Amino acid sequence: MINIREVARLAGVSPATVSRVINGTASVSEEKRQRVLQAIEATDFVPNEVARSLFKRSAKTIGLIIPSIRNPYFTELAAKLDELATQRGYRLFLHNVGYDLDQEWAALQQLEAINADGAILVPSSNDDRADQRELSIPLVVLDSDFNGPVSAYLYCDYYQGAQLAMEHLVDCGCREIVCIRGPQSTFSGRSRYVGYRDYCLEHHIRQRVVDCDYDFNAGLAMTEELLERYPKVDGILACNDIVAISTYKILHKRNIPVPDQIQLIGFDDIAFSSLISPELTTIHQPIDDLASLAMDLVLRQEERAVKGGRHILPVTLVQRETTKRKDA
Amino acid sequence: MINIREVARLAGVSPATVSRVINGTASVSEEKRQRVLQAIEATDFVPNEVARSLFKRSAKTIGLIIPSIRNPYFTELAAKLDELATQRGYRLFLHNVGYDLDQEWAALQQLEAINADGAILVPSSNDDRADQRELSIPLVVLDSDFNGPVSAYLYCDYYQGAQLAMEHLVDCGCREIVCIRGPQSTFSGRSRYVGYRDYCLEHHIRQRVVDCDYDFNAGLAMTEELLERYPKVDGILACNDIVAISTYKILHKRNIPVPDQIQLIGFDDIAFSSLISPELTTIHQPIDDLASLAMDLVLRQEERAVKGGRHILPVTLVQRETTKRKDA
Repeated sequence: MINIREVARLAGVSPATVSRVINGTASVSEEKRQRVLQAIEATDFVPNEVARSLFKRSAKTIGLIIPSIRNPYFTELAAKLDELATQRGYRLFLHNVGYDLDQEWAALQQLEAINADGAILVPSSNDDRADQRELSIPLVVLDSDFNGPVSAYLYCDYYQGAQLAMEHLVDCGCREIVCIRGPQSTFSGRSRYVGYRDYCLEHHIRQRVVDCDYDFNAGLAMTEELLERYPKVDGILACNDIVAISTYKILHKRNIPVPDQIQLIGFDDIAFSSLISPELTTIHQPIDDLASLAMDLVLRQEERAVKGGRHILPVTLVQRETTKRKDA
Repeated sequence: MINIREVARLAGVSPATVSRVINGTASVSEEKRQRVLQAIEATDFVPNEVARSLFKRSAKTIGLIIPSIRNPYFTELAAKLDELATQRGYRLFLHNVGYDLDQEWAALQQLEAINADGAILVPSSNDDRADQRELSIPLVVLDSDFNGPVSAYLYCDYYQGAQLAMEHLVDCGCREIVCIRGPQSTFSGRSRYVGYRDYCLEHHIRQRVVDCDYDFNAGLAMTEELLERYPKVDGILACNDIVAISTYKILHKRNIPVPDQIQLIGFDDIAFSSLISPELTTIHQPIDDLASLAMDLVLRQEERAVKGGRHILPVTLVQRETTKRKDA
């Protein structure tokens, strides 16, 4: 740790002069003042008690770091975390890092620098190693399952979700089910696909896969490709609701009746999936429970908050209007 | 301004002791240290240079305060501002204040306390007086038109937008046009309604109005009421796209063909309005231009950034699939 003596040495002044500059107790020549400020800057010197008291006075703060504010799943999660933080007397600082790992790490460091009470991170990718670095504040990682020195990992059982979705499509009479799988570098994309794959292996179903980003326009393009590659498709498991909505759009444009000719299921249960017409069948993630547990864990108000603990929440199938059971 | 002597007096110690506690230069008894820290806390004493250098070292920061992160219009605006801030080497702190004026003001004060480079505020209501208070950082207010000591006001021409929408519905042959108007305490709700009202007055059209919050569920309920109160309705001007999507949902459930029996137009042009099927006709707000000008103004990189300046951006009609011109 840098102390006031080293700052003084670097600035070529006495420790008393550094004190005077910091506290404004007595006049110091502008030239010396500048040298002291430069030395403070250069050494990253922070009088500890001041820093602590400064930030103690600022509102109690939790940081939330998400990869994209344009994705409704993340904004719904943020909205819920925000409500919970407010209820508990904390303020939520939201950092949108746009899938940029440097920015993600910079945001974590900034939260540490302002002595935030904790950080909740949704990593940009599963290869991301931000959670491998030591932070002095509690860190809860969502939607990721690797092991680092963080307070807790928290995610929904996507593998189970994909299996529920497949089971449902089979119950609906589908025989040619295509999986539009998300980015395999993400935990959600990977584990959903593996759930689909294992279901196919177990039930001797041929895998039919197209790859797609978590993005509406990508969904439009991949649906066109899917229809060309698998003309007999009668069931589609989309990697998330946004992509499912884009899939529906193409089917609607081509006058392919849903669910009569092709049944469609999404993933996440974002609010929009029940607002559109027809309403989307999807796999529900318990976003409220996820947010609530994340907040408990990051504030260490939860006895399960052991270092590196994993918490996996179950998902459920929500049948709406884009699928229809055979017997219905 | 509080100085170190007053802190010392309050703590019942010498100024030198306060210095020692702050700088950690020499040992101080725990009891005195606690008294000094309490006095620092009580007086809000911050050694100025330290505070400044501390925050100078933290990333350059712009604060954005929005009333609701669940509203896609605000998140699209936030996403764009975030991109712009990053491009310019700033970090965007997003504060979601949930239509709570106390929280709104607390967020502004916190941004001031951390010496943010500026704040962009979308007020919770037009009655809100946060922009009437003096802040030491630049403040740009969006979606509001009252006069306070802020750096700039910035909004889209909602009045013109409502007039464009009415003109279009009339061109489409509508004779019984109902306005689902938004909260009249908001600038957007008020000016959109006034645009509708003035168009009706000028063209001797009878006003047909129902009141609705900017909320999907409210939109469902108000559409049911609208159909009961105005059974001959053939055109609907919704207060925003979310409400328009809810209106479509009710019409779809009742098998009322859109646009053949009822034509429908939204407001905002959020991304979802072109993702759904059918695509929504709406009034486009130039969110990218709005964000770009807001960023220029708050960073004072824009010569028009005179205190209290107003900047009004034009809107445009985007015809999609929920309206149809007579001659088409």
